[in-house]
Amino acid sequence: MKIVLIGSGNLAFHLGPALLKAGHTIVQLIGRSDRNTAKLAKKLDCPYSIQTEYINVNTDVYIIAVSDNAIKSFAKQIPKNDKLVLHTSGTVNANVLEIASKHYGVIYPVQTFSTDRKIKFNTVPLCLEASTEIASRKLKKLSSTLSDKIHWISHEQRQVVHLAAVFSNNFSNHLFVIAEELLNKSKLDFNMLRPLIAETAAKIQQNTPGTMQTGPAKRGDSETINKHIALLKNNKQISKIYEVITQDILDHNAPRL
Amino acid sequence: MKIVLIGSGNLAFHLGPALLKAGHTIVQLIGRSDRNTAKLAKKLDCPYSIQTEYINVNTDVYIIAVSDNAIKSFAKQIPKNDKLVLHTSGTVNANVLEIASKHYGVIYPVQTFSTDRKIKFNTVPLCLEASTEIASRKLKKLSSTLSDKIHWISHEQRQVVHLAAVFSNNFSNHLFVIAEELLNKSKLDFNMLRPLIAETAAKIQQNTPGTMQTGPAKRGDSETINKHIALLKNNKQISKIYEVITQDILDHNAPRL
Repeated sequence: MKIVLIGSGNLAFHLGPALLKAGHTIVQLIGRSDRNTAKLAKKLDCPYSIQTEYINVNTDVYIIAVSDNAIKSFAKQIPKNDKLVLHTSGTVNANVLEIASKHYGVIYPVQTFSTDRKIKFNTVPLCLEASTEIASRKLKKLSSTLSDKIHWISHEQRQVVHLAAVFSNNFSNHLFVIAEELLNKSKLDFNMLRPLIAETAAKIQQNTPGTMQTGPAKRGDSETINKHIALLKNNKQISKIYEVITQDILDHNAPRL
Repeated sequence: MKIVLIGSGNLAFHLGPALLKAGHTIVQLIGRSDRNTAKLAKKLDCPYSIQTEYINVNTDVYIIAVSDNAIKSFAKQIPKNDKLVLHTSGTVNANVLEIASKHYGVIYPVQTFSTDRKIKFNTVPLCLEASTEIASRKLKKLSSTLSDKIHWISHEQRQVVHLAAVFSNNFSNHLFVIAEELLNKSKLDFNMLRPLIAETAAKIQQNTPGTMQTGPAKRGDSETINKHIALLKNNKQISKIYEVITQDILDHNAPRL
């Protein structure tokens, strides 16, 4: 398929090459930052523009892979057409694209992308939504060339996936930030935790996280919990995080009704 | 070295084979549960006992690898001697072992062990503490055969490592539990998050977690945060967890003084 790719952020840097590899043609790249856009265009060997007046209309699909709050403004600038117009957001309603085409949809990849990390795109779960049967057919064809993990879900479900992703990724990463701060304050090295963190994630690739839980809260070991709370007594906010998560683990120990 | 290993839990199931592989001899295994002890003894090809009256005294080291609250009672049952006596806990004071020998110490592995998972023991960080120079020399010799990652730290530092490990492992695992519950309630599969969780942990093997943070709180995207809070309105406890972690990420965005 011929594709106009809009965006030059972390996702576009992964999605662009994945589209090429799958045999599609990027007929144009559109970005906001001159430097990143030029860099990605070079990588994709395609023409680029940082001005939306020159959006290519000789395409099959428009993919708007930009931050949530910029989607609508790009959609407005796409000449009204009957092609497939997609965005990639976990939260934004698909119908903001209606202004560009009646055939619109969502392709939301459930993964965290950094420019300097390699991701096997065919293992990335893709959450799909489409406005019409034509959009659905085209989107199915496109997405199946990109990944083996295709999920057709509703707008409401996509919000939940995004929220669950925030817990799994952003929030667990923040716990690692807290752990690093605790270590550093005691002149200890974060390297001490890296194998543990790798194993924590590896364990639940085959298992369900509930069955993998260990630790003082899981054991109901109030002596250790109290020692920890004492250690944190000078940091109100981290104490609060410790307490609410510990309480929720304790509550999970009781059989749920 | 000749070693009496006390314990037949998850740690003993990993530590025992690692000791053998390093060339040591398990002269006796002591456990509480008949079945697990017999199983591990078979694996280690060593005599075992579930009664502490028969603790072997012809040994160089005693390693008490049992749960925190059982360490003291095993230490009491070791015939008073001048060998090295160790426990493996992240929180218990080393001096509970004084009753067995003046040469005592701690070998605390910073890792989560499950019987059914393989762990490369030589990559496990070991936190060490010793009561005397003799204990220190012996412990150094022993631990360097087990792992390349040796850390001599104080009792106070060990408490901090343990606390940081609880944040990194138990608490992040609990966030995965919450994520799974959110998905299941919306008829979605936890598989959708597994690649994301693997990548979250993989990212910080080379990077520091603070630099890897993304998501609505990091961006200060209050619109998405409010949508998430609305989605969680029927679950007070999960809302609370969402709010305290989000608040702490927002506070981290401001430069720290």
